[in-house]
Amino acid sequence: MIQTMQQLSTIEDVRVQIQAARRQGKTIGFVPTMGFLHEGHLSLVKAAREKCDLVVMSIFVNPLQFGPNEDFERYPRDIERDSRMASEAGVDLLFTPTVEEMYPKPILTTVSVANVTTPLCGASRPGHFDGVSTVVLKLFSIVQPDYAFFGQKDAQQVAVVTQMVKDLSVPVEVVPCPIVREADGLAMSSRNVYLSAEERSQALILSQSLQQAAEWLAEGKPLAEIKERIEQMIAAKPLADIDYIQILGYPDLEPIEKETSGQDIIVALAVRFGKTRLIDNLIASVR
Amino acid sequence: MIQTMQQLSTIEDVRVQIQAARRQGKTIGFVPTMGFLHEGHLSLVKAAREKCDLVVMSIFVNPLQFGPNEDFERYPRDIERDSRMASEAGVDLLFTPTVEEMYPKPILTTVSVANVTTPLCGASRPGHFDGVSTVVLKLFSIVQPDYAFFGQKDAQQVAVVTQMVKDLSVPVEVVPCPIVREADGLAMSSRNVYLSAEERSQALILSQSLQQAAEWLAEGKPLAEIKERIEQMIAAKPLADIDYIQILGYPDLEPIEKETSGQDIIVALAVRFGKTRLIDNLIASVR
Repeated sequence: MIQTMQQLSTIEDVRVQIQAARRQGKTIGFVPTMGFLHEGHLSLVKAAREKCDLVVMSIFVNPLQFGPNEDFERYPRDIERDSRMASEAGVDLLFTPTVEEMYPKPILTTVSVANVTTPLCGASRPGHFDGVSTVVLKLFSIVQPDYAFFGQKDAQQVAVVTQMVKDLSVPVEVVPCPIVREADGLAMSSRNVYLSAEERSQALILSQSLQQAAEWLAEGKPLAEIKERIEQMIAAKPLADIDYIQILGYPDLEPIEKETSGQDIIVALAVRFGKTRLIDNLIASVR
Repeated sequence: MIQTMQQLSTIEDVRVQIQAARRQGKTIGFVPTMGFLHEGHLSLVKAAREKCDLVVMSIFVNPLQFGPNEDFERYPRDIERDSRMASEAGVDLLFTPTVEEMYPKPILTTVSVANVTTPLCGASRPGHFDGVSTVVLKLFSIVQPDYAFFGQKDAQQVAVVTQMVKDLSVPVEVVPCPIVREADGLAMSSRNVYLSAEERSQALILSQSLQQAAEWLAEGKPLAEIKERIEQMIAAKPLADIDYIQILGYPDLEPIEKETSGQDIIVALAVRFGKTRLIDNLIASVR
């Protein structure tokens, strides 16, 4: 199959292409990423490809969403490989701006979402979700998509972006897509490359404990007990350094006052293995 | 002239009309207002009429931009009169949402702009500009204008919106329009109706002192001296309660470290007369 993916690095060039597509009445699907693509990203492209006429992917490692002691500098990058993978997956337009293109001067505007950003990664990574919502809104302004595709691995990010879009009446439909996993269960993440063989092996406890949680939920075990058991499973791994293990309402991410049958919940994990912080989650219903 | 202005109160209805106009290739001009229209607003419509195919005005008294002790409840409203005036001025689409339509649930998303919101009204009215930038971004998402017209009386608002649009790459051009004044010099404002005859008479000192300032600037008087003289002129009015009198760089609204010939500045005033807080300003260059 011959692909004719366009790779553009300026906002202005993207606008021109988007306007042309709009004039032709094409629907636009958007997959914002930080690159170092894996099957998770490609599943988003596939979903966009099925739903939209024009598929736009952005690759931008956004400094705003990294804390001062986080891995912005060493975040894995391989734009040539990404470009090839995006093209093969059916991306029509790949937007790869530099930091200077996105933020020619220090950006003074911040988009903040309250409540859903308070727990989980919002608590562990102050300012992270401000950086996410700000860059996503800017990318939406540039790409003007009809649909935007996000992986559920970053479930809190999905909740934040969905809330922002609703609050600000942004004319885009947020489409959450299922977590994609390695054959052994590890949730796909660009950060998995950081893991040593031993860390990677022990990190399997994340997906394993979530699978257990799903079974316990189906059996009707109380949430507090499930949480405690997961905690024990993970803590038993010597390299695991737990950041959080939480069960919250979904998608509001509010504490659960009282378990109600049919209630949607998220079991959310963030655990460090060595220097690498991994997240994973399960969205399910209380039995 | 027969006008066929449409008045719509739901976001969905506006979207439908905007999409139809877009498909016809029309350019869209937008005049966001809080209603109780005066000649200042109508000058914005005129500017939009000259530049755009479709002119959209919104009338929405936005609770987010009022402080707890401000005049949200008593802010003057007269939608029937406004609708007639808008139609006569050439508005094609008048958007008059309720608070419930704009904020069906408490809005969790806030758009904040740093630096330009720090001095002047930003200092006197905490949270005011967050309310402004949030509602303006939401209105831009709904109306998707090519051009948006704002009065320079709210010069800091113009600076805030311009900064936000640039930072977030919002595809709209902000068009600032000159202050419109009553025959005696008082800057047009919906809040002028609050003034008693005596207050209104003494409030003329605002435009008079700015006119003086323009002359002193042309003569090359130092900014500090101009500021002091204006302060004396205004303080001499018994009903005047000065909130601020400031001379800052424009449009960055930064303090002026050193006066440089050709530098753009703003002389900005906020003064209470009775319960009514009035603002006025002069944008000029250092000689």
